[in-house]
Amino acid sequence: MEQRVTIVTLGVADVAASRRFYEAIGWTVGLEIEETVFFQAGGMLLILWDREKLAADIGLEDRGGWGGVALAHNVRSDGDVDRVIEEARTAGARIAREPAVTFYGGYAGVFVDPDGHPWEIACNPGLPLIEDGTIGLPPS
Amino acid sequence: MEQRVTIVTLGVADVAASRRFYEAIGWTVGLEIEETVFFQAGGMLLILWDREKLAADIGLEDRGGWGGVALAHNVRSDGDVDRVIEEARTAGARIAREPAVTFYGGYAGVFVDPDGHPWEIACNPGLPLIEDGTIGLPPS
Repeated sequence: MEQRVTIVTLGVADVAASRRFYEAIGWTVGLEIEETVFFQAGGMLLILWDREKLAADIGLEDRGGWGGVALAHNVRSDGDVDRVIEEARTAGARIAREPAVTFYGGYAGVFVDPDGHPWEIACNPGLPLIEDGTIGLPPS
Repeated sequence: MEQRVTIVTLGVADVAASRRFYEAIGWTVGLEIEETVFFQAGGMLLILWDREKLAADIGLEDRGGWGGVALAHNVRSDGDVDRVIEEARTAGARIAREPAVTFYGGYAGVFVDPDGHPWEIACNPGLPLIEDGTIGLPPS
């Protein structure tokens, strides 16, 4: 298996409401088809889809709640962290962790989208973003 | 907020066991520090971290189980789908959906990693991979 994530699909209760939330924080929909919303995110896609349909499609039992997955969105400055967290708060997200210095020496906050999916917004000087928004580990 | 996922962190019960699983299906660790395993995955990172620590770090309640997130890894042929699913089965993954033609006209199967995180392995002629492994929506 090659080392690649092509799509992250977030199961949501109401696709239209979730779409409005992501648009409110600045995302632009690339495609919507059959109540499935596609966002281009760098070289991959983020998809919003009905959570019940997603569970049925995969063949997983869904007892609700969080499932151990966190997304991170890294930015270039501490001020960008504050700005994105405020955008999310204004759009109705719960702020699970207010921006602060982190244990790994960066600066980050966490918002939780309307369906409980957490996003850490981080500025990490130890893993700086490349100009095109991608990130690379130091050579081992 | 720019349109970008920098990191997907998977909360796991046993970081060493999870690392062995991902290595068994062909992934190469880029960095391990303080029981945190980093994989380079295209322009982003996949991280394995203790699920209890992740929940505490984010500030989320964890009642266990699946949380409505699915990852997809797209490949270039139906044969690649079969091959990756067999690699995952051999490494101990549960196959939640055997490879088959999908409702969207592709061919895909789903494996679930030892911590319950699902991966759809898909060949989707409607959204072909670019040579470098990235994917792009058609212009709208």
